Amino acid sequence: MKKREIRAPFFCVNPKAYLYGEEALKLAKAADELAKTFDIDIFFTVQYVDAYRIAKETTNLIITVQHMDALTVGAGMGYILPEGISAAGVQATFLNHAEHPIKVNQLVKTMQRAEEEGIIVIACADSIAEARAIATLKPDVMVCEPTELIGTGKVSDVSYMEQTNQAVKAVSPKTLVLQAAGISTIADVRQAIESGADGTGGTSGIVCATDPIHTLQEMVEEVTKVRDELKER
Amino acid sequence: MKKREIRAPFFCVNPKAYLYGEEALKLAKAADELAKTFDIDIFFTVQYVDAYRIAKETTNLIITVQHMDALTVGAGMGYILPEGISAAGVQATFLNHAEHPIKVNQLVKTMQRAEEEGIIVIACADSIAEARAIATLKPDVMVCEPTELIGTGKVSDVSYMEQTNQAVKAVSPKTLVLQAAGISTIADVRQAIESGADGTGGTSGIVCATDPIHTLQEMVEEVTKVRDELKER
Amino acid sequence: MKKREIRAPFFCVNPKAYLYGEEALKLAKAADELAKTFDIDIFFTVQYVDAYRIAKETTNLIITVQHMDALTVGAGMGYILPEGISAAGVQATFLNHAEHPIKVNQLVKTMQRAEEEGIIVIACADSIAEARAIATLKPDVMVCEPTELIGTGKVSDVSYMEQTNQAVKAVSPKTLVLQAAGISTIADVRQAIESGADGTGGTSGIVCATDPIHTLQEMVEEVTKVRDELKER
Amino acid sequence: MKKREIRAPFFCVNPKAYLYGEEALKLAKAADELAKTFDIDIFFTVQYVDAYRIAKETTNLIITVQHMDALTVGAGMGYILPEGISAAGVQATFLNHAEHPIKVNQLVKTMQRAEEEGIIVIACADSIAEARAIATLKPDVMVCEPTELIGTGKVSDVSYMEQTNQAVKAVSPKTLVLQAAGISTIADVRQAIESGADGTGGTSGIVCATDPIHTLQEMVEEVTKVRDELKER
Repeated sequence: MKKREIRAPFFCVNPKAYLYGEEALKLAKAADELAKTFDIDIFFTVQYVDAYRIAKETTNLIITVQHMDALTVGAGMGYILPEGISAAGVQATFLNHAEHPIKVNQLVKTMQRAEEEGIIVIACADSIAEARAIATLKPDVMVCEPTELIGTGKVSDVSYMEQTNQAVKAVSPKTLVLQAAGISTIADVRQAIESGADGTGGTSGIVCATDPIHTLQEMVEEVTKVRDELKER
Repeated sequence: MKKREIRAPFFCVNPKAYLYGEEALKLAKAADELAKTFDIDIFFTVQYVDAYRIAKETTNLIITVQHMDALTVGAGMGYILPEGISAAGVQATFLNHAEHPIKVNQLVKTMQRAEEEGIIVIACADSIAEARAIATLKPDVMVCEPTELIGTGKVSDVSYMEQTNQAVKAVSPKTLVLQAAGISTIADVRQAIESGADGTGGTSGIVCATDPIHTLQEMVEEVTKVRDELKER
Repeated sequence: MKKREIRAPFFCVNPKAYLYGEEALKLAKAADELAKTFDIDIFFTVQYVDAYRIAKETTNLIITVQHMDALTVGAGMGYILPEGISAAGVQATFLNHAEHPIKVNQLVKTMQRAEEEGIIVIACADSIAEARAIATLKPDVMVCEPTELIGTGKVSDVSYMEQTNQAVKAVSPKTLVLQAAGISTIADVRQAIESGADGTGGTSGIVCATDPIHTLQEMVEEVTKVRDELKER
Repeated sequence: MKKREIRAPFFCVNPKAYLYGEEALKLAKAADELAKTFDIDIFFTVQYVDAYRIAKETTNLIITVQHMDALTVGAGMGYILPEGISAAGVQATFLNHAEHPIKVNQLVKTMQRAEEEGIIVIACADSIAEARAIATLKPDVMVCEPTELIGTGKVSDVSYMEQTNQAVKAVSPKTLVLQAAGISTIADVRQAIESGADGTGGTSGIVCATDPIHTLQEMVEEVTKVRDELKER
């Protein structure tokens, strides 16, 4: 399968294990609408069991799983088969998230498998040293979140974001950088994109908001505003 | 959700990572028909991403995942949320398969989560000592396969099967025992049930057969023949 | 090698990774003296690299490692070879501590290896369900600490201790029970032994005390006092 | 502690879990003599429990453990504390060997801990992609063995060795490269060093030889011969 091209700036809705089934589908449909309205690429992460259904009922989203394994068709119990998720409509996967760290050799092999199947890789690092190492593997997207900020509603400071953007690009210029640590307001969204990130997004800042769909809409709209402002400069 | 009752002797089709998407669905539909025709409970294991679709398009199968995690609704990237699979129509999970061994405390916690969500647990052990330990946790079903036979097409000998059946029942009388190591012929199926197993099934014996659906039908039919013969005794 | 017999009530000094080198040796020598003076069996856990030296320079202690692996003589990088530790004077090992949980099959295999080498196994469980499962493997000693109390200075309540003692003994009457969660005063020591534990001990309650050797002496002495009182009853 | 300087070409005796206790000590003493006689740096890997004793009874060897953890002084059961091994005389550690692969974030943190304690890091990669990623972390030494050759007595071919040497040096010029896959003859030793490796060594090629000490001597001598020949060119 041919890997989908990503247009920056993009957005990433990552409900982790907060949402599943109907609720996940509802937010996905809203995100799908926003992707169309604002002409923006949106990664939407799903529980594996929801991937097929959400892929079927949406048009624009990049259906994304939160981890994938390197196994091949054959034996192996309970692992995430690349061919299987691809057939279900999945187009991207997170790898090595701080909440799902993997072994060095496993990361290398799984990225090779993703390449074979045309699956976009969003690789995560929780320090600049780790980001540099992983960047040599040329993932499509990288996330560099200081582990201690995940889930806190605190954003990485501008200097950290600039530093990680540069560290990644110095090693792998084509890798897009996602800055999403603690994003919960449109000011956070603006700051992330203005500091040079190729994408931003959130988890608790969206799913734990009073009105998740409204918050999501504001955030996505803000990304496109900054995008348009940056074009004019 | 209320846990589904299992009627012995049952059958288990475990395609592991051999099948996914359309091919998995096709075999599942055939198994579903057999479950109805022969009035037998059939566990059918799926890739997570296929669970929803197969659950929707079948009526009788016990949709089974090959592993599950203990996490709860909230954070956590890339794990198998019990609530999520349950909402997608999954009714059972394998745990601690030799190809996916887990930690002692993780097994205990995941079995508690399965109980909360009404998910049937098929717990695996690869030695009699391990079987006895796990039986204290009173899983719904236990598999006791000598690891060295998995995927070989060699069956456990009758004495091993009887020994494990007894070891499990001595600790947990209500736990059903699945003997499925290397089952590839109807003679293997007969031997497993006659030696006292509550269920049998297969992986490569079915999916690698020249005509998987035909082989599956013969095996399921044989289980019901032995069932009827045993009733008459 | 023949496995050493343990005499209850025993004591366990578990410095974890708080002490190493000279400081560990100093506390070990003090514990060794106490073992002699009070005629009591004392498990003393060591960093692997300190095992040989502490074994050489003490006489009475049961030199104990904090984890062991199941590998056999041959390949394998960086694991704890049973034959190797045994040759260095180690007589016991913790297994499956809450800070080092292991897989079910690994626990079974490692306990078999320990048996082969005559190494005493102190197996840990962090719930009653886990304790019952592990007790079927008949470890020499079991620890049942509610994970949430470890390192807190809070002791398990008497009812929890009695419940775990009974749960273990019901399954494996010869297994000795060590109650050591949050032990930091001689009152805690007394309570543990009076509630039926075969042994008690501590980590932070000793190594973080103002005068560790003095605290250790008081605790060991208290165990022997309770021992003598119980004999008289 | 100040990290020891390594002089290339060096040799590495890696008995893995083949040797322990007296036998390990005996080979270590022989290697120690050779290090002196041939004025060459020799890494000698040990079972943790043998580290102190071998360090005490040798003068020239670089006492090396086969894995190390990132934990700090305090809690933590059964892990390898950097401060502890350093105090016992250990000067180097392997990390991420194919027989002990570790997580990306664990590798990064453990290398930081090694730096803090002045412990030489020998980092392993089992593919060129992995080698490049790890080289960004600037380990002191790197091993690039195609996993499939380990323990086979087959050496990496010259082209693979040259390719990995270059891949590592391109990213981290000061990192020394150890080529040790399947080294079992003096011809293998010569080829490794002539192909540009900074060091070579072996496991089964030495410990499973009819006369390990004699084989070791021949290999070490050959390294120094090639060293002297290369100087003259």
